[in-house]
Order: sequence, then structure tokens, then C-alpha cells
Amino acid sequence: MLECRTPIETYEAITLAHGGGGSLTQRLISEILLPAFDNPHLAELHDGAVFHTEHRILAMTTDSFVVHPYLFPGGDIGSLAVHGTANDLAMCGARPLYLSLAFIIEEGLPVEHFRRIVTSVRDACRPVALQVVTGDTKVVERGKGDGIFINTTGIGVVLPGVEVAPRRVRPGDRILLSGPIAEHGIAILSVREGLSFETDLVSDSAHLWPVVSGVLQTGGNAVHALRDATRGGVASVVNEIARSAGVGIVLDEAEVPVRDDVRGACEILGLDPLYVANEGKFLAFVSPDAVETTLEAMRRHPLGREATLVGEVTKEHPGVVRLRTLFGGSRVLDLAAGEPLPRIC
Amino acid sequence: MLECRTPIETYEAITLAHGGGGSLTQRLISEILLPAFDNPHLAELHDGAVFHTEHRILAMTTDSFVVHPYLFPGGDIGSLAVHGTANDLAMCGARPLYLSLAFIIEEGLPVEHFRRIVTSVRDACRPVALQVVTGDTKVVERGKGDGIFINTTGIGVVLPGVEVAPRRVRPGDRILLSGPIAEHGIAILSVREGLSFETDLVSDSAHLWPVVSGVLQTGGNAVHALRDATRGGVASVVNEIARSAGVGIVLDEAEVPVRDDVRGACEILGLDPLYVANEGKFLAFVSPDAVETTLEAMRRHPLGREATLVGEVTKEHPGVVRLRTLFGGSRVLDLAAGEPLPRIC
Repeated sequence: MLECRTPIETYEAITLAHGGGGSLTQRLISEILLPAFDNPHLAELHDGAVFHTEHRILAMTTDSFVVHPYLFPGGDIGSLAVHGTANDLAMCGARPLYLSLAFIIEEGLPVEHFRRIVTSVRDACRPVALQVVTGDTKVVERGKGDGIFINTTGIGVVLPGVEVAPRRVRPGDRILLSGPIAEHGIAILSVREGLSFETDLVSDSAHLWPVVSGVLQTGGNAVHALRDATRGGVASVVNEIARSAGVGIVLDEAEVPVRDDVRGACEILGLDPLYVANEGKFLAFVSPDAVETTLEAMRRHPLGREATLVGEVTKEHPGVVRLRTLFGGSRVLDLAAGEPLPRIC
Repeated sequence: MLECRTPIETYEAITLAHGGGGSLTQRLISEILLPAFDNPHLAELHDGAVFHTEHRILAMTTDSFVVHPYLFPGGDIGSLAVHGTANDLAMCGARPLYLSLAFIIEEGLPVEHFRRIVTSVRDACRPVALQVVTGDTKVVERGKGDGIFINTTGIGVVLPGVEVAPRRVRPGDRILLSGPIAEHGIAILSVREGLSFETDLVSDSAHLWPVVSGVLQTGGNAVHALRDATRGGVASVVNEIARSAGVGIVLDEAEVPVRDDVRGACEILGLDPLYVANEGKFLAFVSPDAVETTLEAMRRHPLGREATLVGEVTKEHPGVVRLRTLFGGSRVLDLAAGEPLPRIC
């Protein structure tokens, strides 16, 4: 080709033309995206990815990420977008396989930040061998977005014989929690509100599949449902399950692990940790006879080392979650109207 | 449940709490989304959809839609998000099967507009029996978005024996165009710029699969590549193919159909229709012996009635597109830096 090309770094910030489908879009793809996600699907430069599968039961999930700020302690919107979607697949009992990656960028985003986020997506894919197979980039005018939003949609393969779904939850099931809660939400809020705490709070954003695959291999059919406690925290998950499965739930507040510094930060911010978002913690609903083996399977992995039995499913009070409080009382743990603060993920 | 519920119409506009993962998010789902997309996958209220497939070759594609305005002549962001993603699957030779649907809503979006867009998504899915199987809703503060953005990611099944991909394009291939161009871009620009033309210009946004399936059944392996001419128009598609397949392309301007009113509007706006976006037109790269049968297959469908032979692939000038102009001359048709105006899709 005859044209003279200046490197993309000549542009310090993303411009509207980077999203216009012309030569600047091509260069964003060829200079930043393709080198990060080097695989034959993307190299085709097709409108989509074509893949062969011998698997008969697939899972599909989608999530848009609008977290503010997009860089935060313990991660950024890129790693979060990978973990969040891969974890939703894991909650379906599915090993994450393929990911689509779609950006909505606000004009003016520093190219350096974009490159950093793309690298973060790449690095977050590696531990579970996820492949980014197709993507899209749009740019909106200044003031019509907020730096960067990401959508990731994931395809996974459900482990043979596994069936985890809210409707399988039944009275008598025990509820296991994989570890201490509220770390992601507090990490985001601390930087957003400019608070500094005695210790460094970082997001717990991480892949749950390595823990979940162990749980499923051990617990098998005794594992009825899995749910990661993201937006709305543990309280929202148990409420959703109580409603969709038509069961009651009793939760033991004393058994829910919360790190001291996180609890302190929650007190300062006036937040109940049960409602604060996590990005690397999940609840497992298992039949009573599988409690010990499932807890052991969780604890074998660093992310599940502090796993505990936190509650029980009941026939009484369908749709309602009751909390046995730290002080020995009991109260209804309701669904909040929303997150304590928006844009946590 | 004991709580007292006011209908969602009590809220005239979407609030941040609708995206918080709490009770208002649940109601957005149960009162607007679930009734629109009534299928067993969504009814599970799981973190993702689990589906069985006997198909071995699947296609996956993603697109975020940021079109402004989000309601426009001939459609809205909802129908566009369905057509755009389904058409990208069609361009992979795949019948669209499953769709994920993710919203990023700006606080203040009228609930009435949201409902209208959701209905439009539903209606656009029906003609090709697409199923919305999983979704996500986020809300951002006023001034951090622009009404509504949508991501749709699609899964389709590639027709047996079909392999369409840019790398299969070879010298000697003929280039067919399915119909008159530039209608989507001009329809959007006309409302955005407050222009009124003599006739009503509407977007050509539509499903291409019904035309494409006929083309593939007729042309079979002689159909080498398909590409819909969206962002950047026909000029961008032929440039991308020329580069990725390492071939030259000659395009006959006189053979490219443009409606008179669209051409007039392009002249007023100072735009070359070859660079203006379409949402219901595609190019097919076919071997020379398949030209007539493919054109016939296109013309059997209303969307392809005006299909024409517009160009040829050459060995000479790899990576370069030359245009035989209306006036008998010849010039290089380059990739534009971007769309003439941003946020066309």
C-alpha cells in the first residue's frame, strides 16, 4: 500500500474516527487488539467467529461493565469484565470457553488507558484459557459516555452430568459461602469517595471456575445451585433464590466471614456488608449430606480457603429470607432497592 | 410476600436504582423484559442460559449499538440491535439461533421509550425465530451515557458444507450487491440534522438471513465470502476484503444502485453513498460461474430484488480498490478515516 502510516501512539486519546469503521478503526484493531488476542478466530477478520464444538450442552451469559472508576485497587474494568462473565458461566456449571469483547469508548479516553485495559483483558483470560473470539468497538462523543464501558458475552461448556439451577434448590439444602464478603464494593467505594483506610482494600475480582470445578467434581448432583454474589451482594442472591425457587431461607450472620478492615470500612460508610458487591465469592446450595465434602473442596483452593456454612433452605416462609443476627435476634433480610452506590460493576 | 408494590409505570423514567441489582432491577426484569421474551431459558432466572445443541459448527458475533437518535425512521436501536447482530451471523453463513441482550441506560430514559425499544427487539426477533436467552441491565448517571446503548451477541449454526470467509476470496471472483445503498445512514442523518427531503427516507434495517440462506443453498461452495455494508459503507467492506484477502478489487460505480432521493440527499450533505452505512444490504463474493444463479437467488427475495453485479476481484494491485467512475474514469477508492458522521449504528 502506498499510504504513509503514523503509529497509533501519535494519537494520545481515542477520537470519534477510531469508532467510525474506517482506517483508524482498522488500526485500533491491528495495532492494539489483534496483538493482544492472537488466535485464529480473530485473525480471520470476519464479522463473527466460527468454532467447532463436540459439546452438546452449552451455556451463554452476557454482562455490561460500567464500573466507575475504570481503574481500581485489585483490577480494572478489563479484568472485571473477564472475571464477571466467566464467573456467570461457572455459576451455570460451565467451563468458560469463548468470549466476545465489545467496547463503548468515550471520545478522549487516553490511548494508554485503552492499551492497559486490553492487556488486562488478555491477562485475565489466561488462567482459564478463555479465548476472545470476536469483538466490536464504538466511540461516543465526550459527555455521552464515561471513559469506557465493556460488554463481554461468554460461551462455556456445561460439565457432563451437572445441572445447577435456582429451581433445583429445595427445603433442607444448606448454603455455603466461598469466603469473606464485600471486598469488591468497598475497594471501589474507597477510591471513588477518596477515603483511605488503615489497610489497603483491594477488589476480590477473580476467576471462580477453578474452585467451582472442584466443587462440582466432588459434589456432583448434590450441588443444586451456584450464584456469585455480585451487584446487591449476598442479601440479593439469597432473596432472588428464595423467590425464584419458592423457598424460605435462614442466614446466620455470625457465620458470614467479613475481614476486619472491610467491616470497619462498612461501618464508616454506613453499609451492611451483606448488601455490598463481590466479584470473587459465590454461594453454593447443596443437599445436607454434601456439606462437608463441598466445604473441603472449596477450601482446597486459595479463593475458598475461608468457606463456611452460612445458612439453610426452609419450607416455611417461601420467598422470605430471615437473618439470625450477630446479637441472637432474627429479622427479615429484604432485597434492597438497589446497590448502596451505583456502578460497582 | 408482604411488601406493597406500585406498578413500574409509577416511575416515568429509569432511575439509578433500576440498575442496582435490587428490587427495582427485579421489577424491570419481571414487568418489562420477561413478558417480552417469554422462553424457558430466561424463565430460569439464572446467571446465564444453558442450551442443548446437536450442531457442531457454531458462529458467534457481538455488536454494541450507540445509534443517535435511538428512535429513527424505519426502526429504532432495538430492531437495529437484532438485525445488526443477526446479519453478522448470516455473513458467517450461519442461521441465527440465540441472542444475548444487554442494556446500558442513562438515568432519566423514559420508561415508555424503554418499553417501546424492548417491544421492538421482540418483534425483530420473530421473523427469524431468534431467541433472547440471557440479558443484563445497567444504569449510569445522567450525562454519563446517551439515552440507551445496547449490546447484542448472537450464536448461530453454520449451514452444513458452507464456508464463507474473507480468506476464500480469490482473483476472478465477482462481487454482487444485494440492493440500493446508503439508506440507513441517510435516514439517521436526516433526522439528526433536522433535514427534510422531498420523500420519506427510512432505514433499510432488516434481516438478511432469508436472502442469504437462499444464496447459500443455490451457490453452495461457489459463494466465497459475504459481508454486510454497515459502518463505513460499501467502500469500507471492499477495502477490508482487498486487504485481508490480499487481492485487488475493481468496482463499477455505474452498477451500484442508489435511489434517486438518497442520491439527492447525499449531494446535499456532501457525502459519497459508497461510504454511507447500510443495515440491510450485503456484498457476495462468488466464483464467476455462479454469478447468474446467485443473482437469481437474491432477486427471489424482496430485499434482493435490485441485486446487481458491481465488481470483480483481481490479482493486480493487491490491497487496493479501484473505482470505474460514472464518468468513465478510474480512481483509487480508499478506506475513509471514519464514518462521515459518528454513531450511525
